[in-house]
Amino acid sequence: MAVGLKTPDSLLPVKGIRLGITQAGIRYQERDDLVLVELAEGTQTAAVFTRNAFCAAPVIVSQQHLLTVSPSFLVINSGNANAGLGEAGMQAVRDTCQAVAELAGCDPEHVLVFSTGVIGEPFATDKLVAALPAAQGNLSEDNWLHAAHAIMTTDTVAKGVSEQLMLDGQTVTVTGMVKGAGMIRPDMATMLAYIGTDANVDASILDDILSSAVKNSFNRITVDGDTSTNDACVLMASGQAGNRVISDPLSDEAGLLAASIERVCQQLAEAMLRDAEGATRLMTIIVEQGEDEDECAKVGFTIAHSPLVKTALFAADPNWGRILAAIGRSGVDDLDIDRIEIMLDDVCIVSNGGRAGSYTEEAGQRVMQQDVVTVTVRLGRGEASSTVKTCDFSYDYVRINAEYRS
Amino acid sequence: MAVGLKTPDSLLPVKGIRLGITQAGIRYQERDDLVLVELAEGTQTAAVFTRNAFCAAPVIVSQQHLLTVSPSFLVINSGNANAGLGEAGMQAVRDTCQAVAELAGCDPEHVLVFSTGVIGEPFATDKLVAALPAAQGNLSEDNWLHAAHAIMTTDTVAKGVSEQLMLDGQTVTVTGMVKGAGMIRPDMATMLAYIGTDANVDASILDDILSSAVKNSFNRITVDGDTSTNDACVLMASGQAGNRVISDPLSDEAGLLAASIERVCQQLAEAMLRDAEGATRLMTIIVEQGEDEDECAKVGFTIAHSPLVKTALFAADPNWGRILAAIGRSGVDDLDIDRIEIMLDDVCIVSNGGRAGSYTEEAGQRVMQQDVVTVTVRLGRGEASSTVKTCDFSYDYVRINAEYRS
Repeated sequence: MAVGLKTPDSLLPVKGIRLGITQAGIRYQERDDLVLVELAEGTQTAAVFTRNAFCAAPVIVSQQHLLTVSPSFLVINSGNANAGLGEAGMQAVRDTCQAVAELAGCDPEHVLVFSTGVIGEPFATDKLVAALPAAQGNLSEDNWLHAAHAIMTTDTVAKGVSEQLMLDGQTVTVTGMVKGAGMIRPDMATMLAYIGTDANVDASILDDILSSAVKNSFNRITVDGDTSTNDACVLMASGQAGNRVISDPLSDEAGLLAASIERVCQQLAEAMLRDAEGATRLMTIIVEQGEDEDECAKVGFTIAHSPLVKTALFAADPNWGRILAAIGRSGVDDLDIDRIEIMLDDVCIVSNGGRAGSYTEEAGQRVMQQDVVTVTVRLGRGEASSTVKTCDFSYDYVRINAEYRS
Repeated sequence: MAVGLKTPDSLLPVKGIRLGITQAGIRYQERDDLVLVELAEGTQTAAVFTRNAFCAAPVIVSQQHLLTVSPSFLVINSGNANAGLGEAGMQAVRDTCQAVAELAGCDPEHVLVFSTGVIGEPFATDKLVAALPAAQGNLSEDNWLHAAHAIMTTDTVAKGVSEQLMLDGQTVTVTGMVKGAGMIRPDMATMLAYIGTDANVDASILDDILSSAVKNSFNRITVDGDTSTNDACVLMASGQAGNRVISDPLSDEAGLLAASIERVCQQLAEAMLRDAEGATRLMTIIVEQGEDEDECAKVGFTIAHSPLVKTALFAADPNWGRILAAIGRSGVDDLDIDRIEIMLDDVCIVSNGGRAGSYTEEAGQRVMQQDVVTVTVRLGRGEASSTVKTCDFSYDYVRINAEYRS
């Protein structure tokens, strides 16, 4: 089902970050569903979480823990989101942290917990706790791909990416994994992304690198506008690559590392879109010549969320009227319609606010047959730009999301 | 296809408002596609139009004309929206107004034009103009139902409603017709609504009555969040019922008339939803206990636009997690999750922000089988409320909107 997406052959290990995987049987049987991540002493961690006001118990607790100490362990389970359970859900997270603390000899505050799966079902803390020693037993730096499989829920493909760069004469590795099929299934949804690097970098810079990377990757894709109660993205830097610590945010090294992490996040984000349930085709929407980036993103998201644009994308229909109508209702003040230009790849479909004279349906349809279609919208009112990516709305989207929670 | 909706048996004539209908062959063959509405001298007219920045040529010209004079004629065609055609589209509207002016002996400024149908196709002004005498030839006060058929595009049912009330000892009639299947097809879309009454009422009051009625009816329904380039709603009051002119907006008579017009608009709006392409089930979302109406409407629309809620509605799945997640991401500041209560009709599914103790799936599924499901959300932070209505997302929605524009 996934659009041109395969499980990676391998993911590079990251010095100082070990992952242990096992079957806890929380919901799924006969597959891995539990990951324990152990961070070497000195690892710096940054994280961003869902902005949904209904955030799940593990999100609340992990945010609290991050405020005070630097984490030593992450526990990630699939199958149950531990959301909508009130005090019982909070207790499940506290019990999990306590169990890891006893097993590993640390404080419970040094543990972060992440859960993904069904909402509102009782959480089998006992099964998770009972499986922790097995996960600890196979901790290894070379387990990223194995872990990428274990955190899947409705994903059809395990998603991860690695790259290396030279910093200060040392080889630095960046490896990331993600689960999520967009945010299209709150039952089973949640985007969880983990990026590890052995770069030696100051904690304050790490926060900036992560927020900028997320803004330009995960926060610029959309399947259907829904946001999970459990979304999280974590960036861990073990500092074991041997480079001198990066503490100047304006240094070349900081820039190189930030660019690498952003590339990894963008590839993970695109992998999620390609694996979005029912997706048959992707659309990259580049909005240019806006007054500021916000209005460009607003136009991009209005197009990306339009069910009419998405069903036309499914049908490979170069329906410029629908794109134009979405731009028109996107809420940009004083938009001068007569300046609007729209391109489908290199085919101009709208110029001066109307159908381009040179445009033919044949040219438009040829572009729309592609797996990935790029729509460029020029607003003709400034120099800012923004890029948003989305996928189509297919019969399978309806089928998958209309099925009972069984 | 329409959910429990039939063409009305009849619509009541309105004194002073005559409608003429004919076949112009603008796009459709062998069916009526042109309506000429003649307003008796002294008729007061109020109108609201699409807020899409890409508004069609007839919208631009009609808005200009309304600024200066009171209209005597409306021309409404189906089959071609005259949108996205640039100067050629403007000329088509001017030529139409000129033709009516010559035929009827009035100024072109006394004519309003409304078009609905495909976007971006050349407009056959000659065919429209050639058919005007035939439309004029069968002008009659008793033609509302006939006209409701002629303005249909993708509608499956002609939609109209009438009611009568007593004002100042006189019987006053309110008759309305609407076309549109939500705003789900910009190709063929457009909501056009016309409400006529013989009430004698001051023009300034008429504007207030219309904007309030529209706010509580057409602006509180949504199919997929898309807005057409041609939407319009026109309220015409001929003043021929014989009641003393209503000039005090706070008078009982003004209140009675406003209530009647709002009821008619709400019935027309619900008829559109019931006829929305692919709709199999409707949802009425009542958001209560908000700080103000705006935040209640924001929550209501976030639920109504959620493809996840809409596919669950299609599947008759009482998926409270999806409703809860939509509320959480609706952007209401300082929302206290623990106070949220959600009802499905009379079944409490969420209380204190979590699954209600008394809730059973069976009870939820029983409600979801209904044609119309009422979801009541209580925010527990104030006394304001708002009601939003929507329909489900079905396979047919995707099918209809994925078809080529043929």
